[in-house]
Amino acid sequence: MKILVANLGSTSFKYSLYEGDDSALTLLARGGYERVSDYGETIRDAISSMKKDGHIDSVDSIDAVGFKTVLGFEKTGCVAADDSVVADLRASAELAPAHNPAYANGIEQFAKEMPNAQLVALYETAFYQWASKPSRRYAVPKAWYEAGVRRNGFHGASHKFVAERSAELLGREDVAQQVRFLYQKDQSELPGKPLRVVSCHLGGSSSVTGIRNGVAIDTSMGLSPQSGLPQNNRVGDLDSMAVTYVMKKLGLSIEEVERQLTKESGLLGLSGKSNDVRDIWAAVDAGDDDAKLAIDSLVYSIRQYVGSYMLQLGGLDALVFTAGIGENDTRVRERVCQGLEDLGLELDLDKNAVTRGEETCISAANSRIKIFVIPANEELVIARETSRFLSHNK
Amino acid sequence: MKILVANLGSTSFKYSLYEGDDSALTLLARGGYERVSDYGETIRDAISSMKKDGHIDSVDSIDAVGFKTVLGFEKTGCVAADDSVVADLRASAELAPAHNPAYANGIEQFAKEMPNAQLVALYETAFYQWASKPSRRYAVPKAWYEAGVRRNGFHGASHKFVAERSAELLGREDVAQQVRFLYQKDQSELPGKPLRVVSCHLGGSSSVTGIRNGVAIDTSMGLSPQSGLPQNNRVGDLDSMAVTYVMKKLGLSIEEVERQLTKESGLLGLSGKSNDVRDIWAAVDAGDDDAKLAIDSLVYSIRQYVGSYMLQLGGLDALVFTAGIGENDTRVRERVCQGLEDLGLELDLDKNAVTRGEETCISAANSRIKIFVIPANEELVIARETSRFLSHNK
Repeated sequence: MKILVANLGSTSFKYSLYEGDDSALTLLARGGYERVSDYGETIRDAISSMKKDGHIDSVDSIDAVGFKTVLGFEKTGCVAADDSVVADLRASAELAPAHNPAYANGIEQFAKEMPNAQLVALYETAFYQWASKPSRRYAVPKAWYEAGVRRNGFHGASHKFVAERSAELLGREDVAQQVRFLYQKDQSELPGKPLRVVSCHLGGSSSVTGIRNGVAIDTSMGLSPQSGLPQNNRVGDLDSMAVTYVMKKLGLSIEEVERQLTKESGLLGLSGKSNDVRDIWAAVDAGDDDAKLAIDSLVYSIRQYVGSYMLQLGGLDALVFTAGIGENDTRVRERVCQGLEDLGLELDLDKNAVTRGEETCISAANSRIKIFVIPANEELVIARETSRFLSHNK
Repeated sequence: MKILVANLGSTSFKYSLYEGDDSALTLLARGGYERVSDYGETIRDAISSMKKDGHIDSVDSIDAVGFKTVLGFEKTGCVAADDSVVADLRASAELAPAHNPAYANGIEQFAKEMPNAQLVALYETAFYQWASKPSRRYAVPKAWYEAGVRRNGFHGASHKFVAERSAELLGREDVAQQVRFLYQKDQSELPGKPLRVVSCHLGGSSSVTGIRNGVAIDTSMGLSPQSGLPQNNRVGDLDSMAVTYVMKKLGLSIEEVERQLTKESGLLGLSGKSNDVRDIWAAVDAGDDDAKLAIDSLVYSIRQYVGSYMLQLGGLDALVFTAGIGENDTRVRERVCQGLEDLGLELDLDKNAVTRGEETCISAANSRIKIFVIPANEELVIARETSRFLSHNK
């Protein structure tokens, strides 16, 4: 089975071609285009290039195309990317202005250019569809809820991969199997003690998710990816009254408030230096107080959510770090885990210090709660979910 | 020593007169006025009434007047309510429009009517002045921070009382003593294991505070009392992007957004029924789903913060419930404590079920973490702090 993963921006297109089934997928080819004006032409060019390199015989060699759609009003999960998905992406474009129009247009173009391939939409929000009502609802007037103000959650593909892989590492094949087909089969209540995991996806965009028996119970990002942890240049959690307060106090327009909250806040706003944690650490090492505050705030916020979900889960079996910062930033991991011995969590400092980008258990031997680094390959995850959709919907 | 506690609204004035010192204060008199138009006249009337009832000989019998001021830009703590306090209350009126102008005006009137009494301002934010920078800062642009967008915290008097009383109940006189003079003396690092307490002030207005050795490390309310837990009719935590989203989507003005977030949200918004938990429970018992969601959301949100602070503190020694719901709502307490045995917290269900409004330890005998109900008398707390200020600044 050949699966194309299509990553679409408003003027960009990246793709990866995989072969195999969900248990073993091999990357055949990868490519990308910037400053795309005609998507149809770009898709045809990508197909020519894969043909030329011998990866496919014709456009019909591609069984499915997987799209990592962000969110919609009506749709979530891992579903056929049909006209109703396109319409819903358009209807909810205000919630994800940078992504939804690009995916709506892109899916239509793919449907034209690859009429025999199954198009599959894997929503970023898919992993949260079973979380409890209190975790999904804000205490807003009903009219706001009906207008779409709800806790969506993002990074679903990554956290779901962590749910599956951590279950495997902890010897809970029953949980791993439940996760694998979460989007295809009904869940069953698993016997035995529930497996309780908190997954920290820390990168340019960061979120923390609580997971019970492979199913998300809550996540730090809410309505938008501007909430939860302080992001690279997006604000994270903020008292909502601050918005009207600064509009009045500083005379900012709606557009200017949105711009500042999404472009000049987060780690960039705190540090006043950079939106990249590596640059911020360099400034910390040079003695910069604002840079120190940015790192301290990131760590503090991660710990707030880890603690929340540890309690909501009634305890914890594993804490997992993934994505750029989670996989590579040994100092952030060390600080997140600091002083938690009473709660049963202890890092192996030496193992942690040498672990970068590789799957490793970094907890101390006597730590009741295991700590893992689990690198995720997001495109591979999308290809796997697409392949699972296909095998289940043949 | 005679101390008057003055509770001021925009058109209301309530007072309580206490006698004694901070270790033992007796309530002598209490009174109140509604629809006040002339504060000077009202103060004179209250003084006449206290004289007539034999509680004071003259206006000069009153040594001090304590005011529970909300917040300012520059001031916090328990300080002399002088001209600089009045000016700061006026400068920061936009942050507390219902309270700051009333207190600024009221303090000026008291200074005129009672020239020989020491006026003392006890800020709601006072307890949080030593919390770490990451807990006080939002990841907003520096201009927003300088305009006053910071995590203030409220309910300081109540949580500080819990800090003091829980330390006494746990036999930590060193911690209790530190709390008593927190606003008067420099802190010292106490020897031995730190005492870690989470205080849940649950009422019409609710917040959760984490406390280490008697000093707050963080609290759920931020810039405004509209954040943190879902309040009676105020929203609690909300993705800040929801504000500009509904302004555009529903065409709401700044004023209308603020009105809906402060009057039609919280438990009222979720339940669609009432802003009073007793009414909401009655609807739950009658099978109402929205009412159930409101209670579920309140409990869920309390647990989020308890978990956050338990982790930030590296563990927990006591969980305390105070204020109307905290002291009386046995079902909310039971649900907050549910399923936390693995974390060392276990409620004595029978004791909990009969405890209303009285100081009681309601944890099970084998619970590692103690659970207390500690009723707080807010006016008495203000009188005590005022008396401590006085004895320290004689």
